[in-house]
Amino acid sequence: MKYSFKNDYGRGCHPQILNALSVSNMEIEEGYGEDRFSKAAKELIKAEVGGDPEVYFVAGGTQANLTVISALLKPYESVISANTAHIQVHETGAIEATGHRIQTIDTPDGKLRPEDIQGLLTLFEEVHTTIPRLVYISNSTEVGTIYSKQELMALYECCRAAGLLLFMDGARLSSALASKENDLSFLDLGKYTDVFYIGGTKAGALLGEAIVFNNKNISTGFAYNMKQKGALMAKGRILGIQFLELFRDGLFLKLAAHANEMAQQLKFAIKGMGIDLICDTSTNQIFPVLNNRVVEALKKDYEFIVWQKIDAEHSAIRLVTCWATEEEAVKQFLEDLSSLKSPSN
Amino acid sequence: MKYSFKNDYGRGCHPQILNALSVSNMEIEEGYGEDRFSKAAKELIKAEVGGDPEVYFVAGGTQANLTVISALLKPYESVISANTAHIQVHETGAIEATGHRIQTIDTPDGKLRPEDIQGLLTLFEEVHTTIPRLVYISNSTEVGTIYSKQELMALYECCRAAGLLLFMDGARLSSALASKENDLSFLDLGKYTDVFYIGGTKAGALLGEAIVFNNKNISTGFAYNMKQKGALMAKGRILGIQFLELFRDGLFLKLAAHANEMAQQLKFAIKGMGIDLICDTSTNQIFPVLNNRVVEALKKDYEFIVWQKIDAEHSAIRLVTCWATEEEAVKQFLEDLSSLKSPSN
Amino acid sequence: MKYSFKNDYGRGCHPQILNALSVSNMEIEEGYGEDRFSKAAKELIKAEVGGDPEVYFVAGGTQANLTVISALLKPYESVISANTAHIQVHETGAIEATGHRIQTIDTPDGKLRPEDIQGLLTLFEEVHTTIPRLVYISNSTEVGTIYSKQELMALYECCRAAGLLLFMDGARLSSALASKENDLSFLDLGKYTDVFYIGGTKAGALLGEAIVFNNKNISTGFAYNMKQKGALMAKGRILGIQFLELFRDGLFLKLAAHANEMAQQLKFAIKGMGIDLICDTSTNQIFPVLNNRVVEALKKDYEFIVWQKIDAEHSAIRLVTCWATEEEAVKQFLEDLSSLKSPSN
Amino acid sequence: MKYSFKNDYGRGCHPQILNALSVSNMEIEEGYGEDRFSKAAKELIKAEVGGDPEVYFVAGGTQANLTVISALLKPYESVISANTAHIQVHETGAIEATGHRIQTIDTPDGKLRPEDIQGLLTLFEEVHTTIPRLVYISNSTEVGTIYSKQELMALYECCRAAGLLLFMDGARLSSALASKENDLSFLDLGKYTDVFYIGGTKAGALLGEAIVFNNKNISTGFAYNMKQKGALMAKGRILGIQFLELFRDGLFLKLAAHANEMAQQLKFAIKGMGIDLICDTSTNQIFPVLNNRVVEALKKDYEFIVWQKIDAEHSAIRLVTCWATEEEAVKQFLEDLSSLKSPSN
Repeated sequence: MKYSFKNDYGRGCHPQILNALSVSNMEIEEGYGEDRFSKAAKELIKAEVGGDPEVYFVAGGTQANLTVISALLKPYESVISANTAHIQVHETGAIEATGHRIQTIDTPDGKLRPEDIQGLLTLFEEVHTTIPRLVYISNSTEVGTIYSKQELMALYECCRAAGLLLFMDGARLSSALASKENDLSFLDLGKYTDVFYIGGTKAGALLGEAIVFNNKNISTGFAYNMKQKGALMAKGRILGIQFLELFRDGLFLKLAAHANEMAQQLKFAIKGMGIDLICDTSTNQIFPVLNNRVVEALKKDYEFIVWQKIDAEHSAIRLVTCWATEEEAVKQFLEDLSSLKSPSN
Repeated sequence: MKYSFKNDYGRGCHPQILNALSVSNMEIEEGYGEDRFSKAAKELIKAEVGGDPEVYFVAGGTQANLTVISALLKPYESVISANTAHIQVHETGAIEATGHRIQTIDTPDGKLRPEDIQGLLTLFEEVHTTIPRLVYISNSTEVGTIYSKQELMALYECCRAAGLLLFMDGARLSSALASKENDLSFLDLGKYTDVFYIGGTKAGALLGEAIVFNNKNISTGFAYNMKQKGALMAKGRILGIQFLELFRDGLFLKLAAHANEMAQQLKFAIKGMGIDLICDTSTNQIFPVLNNRVVEALKKDYEFIVWQKIDAEHSAIRLVTCWATEEEAVKQFLEDLSSLKSPSN
Repeated sequence: MKYSFKNDYGRGCHPQILNALSVSNMEIEEGYGEDRFSKAAKELIKAEVGGDPEVYFVAGGTQANLTVISALLKPYESVISANTAHIQVHETGAIEATGHRIQTIDTPDGKLRPEDIQGLLTLFEEVHTTIPRLVYISNSTEVGTIYSKQELMALYECCRAAGLLLFMDGARLSSALASKENDLSFLDLGKYTDVFYIGGTKAGALLGEAIVFNNKNISTGFAYNMKQKGALMAKGRILGIQFLELFRDGLFLKLAAHANEMAQQLKFAIKGMGIDLICDTSTNQIFPVLNNRVVEALKKDYEFIVWQKIDAEHSAIRLVTCWATEEEAVKQFLEDLSSLKSPSN
Repeated sequence: MKYSFKNDYGRGCHPQILNALSVSNMEIEEGYGEDRFSKAAKELIKAEVGGDPEVYFVAGGTQANLTVISALLKPYESVISANTAHIQVHETGAIEATGHRIQTIDTPDGKLRPEDIQGLLTLFEEVHTTIPRLVYISNSTEVGTIYSKQELMALYECCRAAGLLLFMDGARLSSALASKENDLSFLDLGKYTDVFYIGGTKAGALLGEAIVFNNKNISTGFAYNMKQKGALMAKGRILGIQFLELFRDGLFLKLAAHANEMAQQLKFAIKGMGIDLICDTSTNQIFPVLNNRVVEALKKDYEFIVWQKIDAEHSAIRLVTCWATEEEAVKQFLEDLSSLKSPSN
């Protein structure tokens, strides 16, 4: 079998989580998220985030995005995102299917800045255009970059001033918070977003994302929206049990730290070989630019995605690590890359 | 702790399923349902159903209903259902949220008959009413009844003749097929429905429903609809592994047979006490009519739902059993009911 | 040519309105409802209704219903209506197409009462059912009946108490307000509804309905919703000019008084012949029950709709009058009916 | 009063149309487009277009766009348009409100080319992106340009080859067909589009667009979609009467020829003054680039839209003419512009 750097959802879940599912398996619990595991997990998350937020569990990232965004917008309101945003690029029109436009902004690094938002807002003309009401950001972004505390605060203030809500997609929040360059805490997310979610699927769980509404004015009725969109699990305990395990004792960040470490080992070694990256990231995704010949050769022993054509002879590939990536895989990949790399690369 | 007859999703999953998840946990697999477990489970299901159907896995029943129904209807087309249908009663307007009307028919027992459909169709007036295009039935129904082979065939022929598609919600299909009164096989479902689903959540899995399109003219692009509606799981393997276990060696029907047996023991004994049922069912749900005083007394030691007010002094309760219901619970309940029952009941 | 009692939109518009369109035709005006005619018409309507409502013009009744209802509901909220409601019976699922369920209540006369609403509200269960948020009534109703001031006040108070909004469909408001049994004024509509509309199409205009939001908390952004739903006319002046003419000098009620008078002449004479009506109305619609033989004979010289089968030998027909119905048509119809009527009818 | 070059819907309708409305006013007709005027108008249009198309009348352009596009797409299918497209820029998210994404392509002149489409199609990845199914073009475009016969044929063939439908928004079709550079006929539109519409509102009618389905495989049930979206007028005769008048004797193109002539007089004179245009158009819209000082001065006596900032000192304005634009207005404008223009402009 090949080593895989294809994505961060290729395996099952961390053994501790599987164990927690086993131990609790025969207990009888309420359905639809009213079980004691979900309640306990919510308390742990609330303690991390501070304040008195509302927490809801759903199965996956697209569910989180579409249930949150459709709950917050009136029919004629739209959501602002980066052109690289998951909701724009990889969710098969899920947001439009709930009736809403995505207004995209081109960004070099997957991140939105206050001046982007302010510039976009000048383009809206009364009645004939939608009213932007919500800003969607991802952290870490779809290209592996992260927001600093200062950046997030500035964005949040810009949103406040413009009457916009701020929503952070945290499908890969663990890798952002575990980055060595990160200075954001859960407490900051509680203060500087209206709503965000904590991705479990890519952080070592079988499935599950925890949606956290800091702004309780906007969460009324949210569980109804979940049910309507098919996002309220009958055996909601499965989500509660997993988040309980992730947050009981620091597992969430510990697993992400390993994933990041593996990617950063790859990154530094690859940079050391004189290879460029399309953006310099500190999380679990890196994007080296390789000669197409090298890309083809690597495909024989490794799984990864060819991300982007750079020129006739070069392509960027995406290497993703996860909680379970073996150090051995990293070493072997670097060894093979080193031997494949020619002076012309 | 009390014994529970509240629902059939109060516990985790059957230990064999949990074991299968453990054994496969560290294997690296493709995401989004392209893993080998999902592929193998689909083959098993196809072999049961016959023909060459398309099979898709989603997390839950509302997801199955909304993804299928929205995929099959044009904007101005509607779905016909019984007034007791899950999509009408307990899904928070999920079908309407995809833009479609449900046209309901009042039925005494949760089942639709050809004459119901034909009667309804006469009410539609050109342009000012929707065009019914799809008939939705549940088996077993929301009130525990089942369709016979003759009934299903008649309904399917009626649909064909009227240009309607037939969709069976099988959230509790296991209890229907395992009923002692059942004469339907998977092969029949393959012949006499256009699309149906096989419920895993209420049949011993943690989560998961298998949607089976017999009519492949209508399944084109269905995976896109799943993704758009948030119903395509990143770690789709979890669904595949569970259905593989359910269908590998007959577990699916074996577990339902136990659930049915427990409910039928309750039913026969309760009838033997001279207590009425609102409908006589052969599956895992029974609905005895009790004196309110008895209902209150039972609540101290048992969990169940008060289903319906019958008159000032009587209510129907719903007792549901599942793969894990203990025979002891059944015996204890019957003993307690017997001692509570007064001549006035 | 036959005389027609088929509907109240069979002719063009009242000559005064046509004249107003001609006189203003070559003036240059702003588009999209910002013209001076629309502004002036809105002022006239506001003066009638009292308070400081927001007024918007749309082309037709289904547009009015779908733009208002979709603007007021969150995704998981529903609208309550009578089972006879236009939105339920004759709008091809227009409300569901905006994502919302209609919760209907069976009524004998097309009208909703507080006890109906209160009874319905007890059926809703947390999370698994929609949240009713809006009550839709029609005045006059689809079967020609009207609301008294006391009835409307009671309904409005019931809505307030239950946190529901009240919306009156006034496609035939003119016939209600011009009824001899009516005791409601525009001022009352301003006080005892959150939003209502004034039908122009059936009241002598070519097209147009005036939506009046008394509750300005709910009208924010409504023009955006109109534009999004295709209900904001480029030459909005056409709507303004017509409503200006209808409300400039009492034409609106004068035309409806004629229509009602014609229907009431029919009604009293028909009752005098010993013929039953399915409900006794004071507006421009009546529903006599006739022997099928008589119905067939009348079809030769008159246009009308067969409304409902009563028994094997009898049917109810609907006779509708309008601003342009000739007294001669009424007389001729009564004469013919009288001669057709046999003792067995 | 100022002369207006602001838009092409500032006045009522051509006097012949008003007269036709008057003459037919008291005739009793069927509602909802079943009147004899609508039928006759459809026959005239069918004769122009050739083949045996289906014709439907709706009130306005956004209605035409949203009813057509929502009728043709499955939930997960999307529509391709230019970034300048009316559906993208000026319809308040009307298409998204029906559940569908617009995939835009940047174009220099508002027109799409086969290579644009082919390039876009390479970006779609299975399941995670929508399926483009429909190409939307405008003729004349939102920036006044037109499609040649060769361009339209090439686009249509490209669509065929890629399994895409081709839809032409003809809100300003009259100005395109009446352009001196045009070589497209109605017969060509019948051959090289699947569906298009003929704008009445901007061509001298009070309101109304005629949707023409050449491809009858895709028009089944379209009237239901119109009704559901609020686009089926009760007094549909109004639309029929107007289109009958527009097409009875060549009025449609005659009025557009006048509008174009007025704009072209402006254009040639303005170019003669050495003033640039952002694109060279042959229809009723021109976009000269003026010194901001000149723009401000012109605003005193003329109404027009400032279209686009060019640099710190210059802006493009939009001048639009219509069937009623007076030659005198054109002359006066040119005179004033000439005297305002300084060497620095």
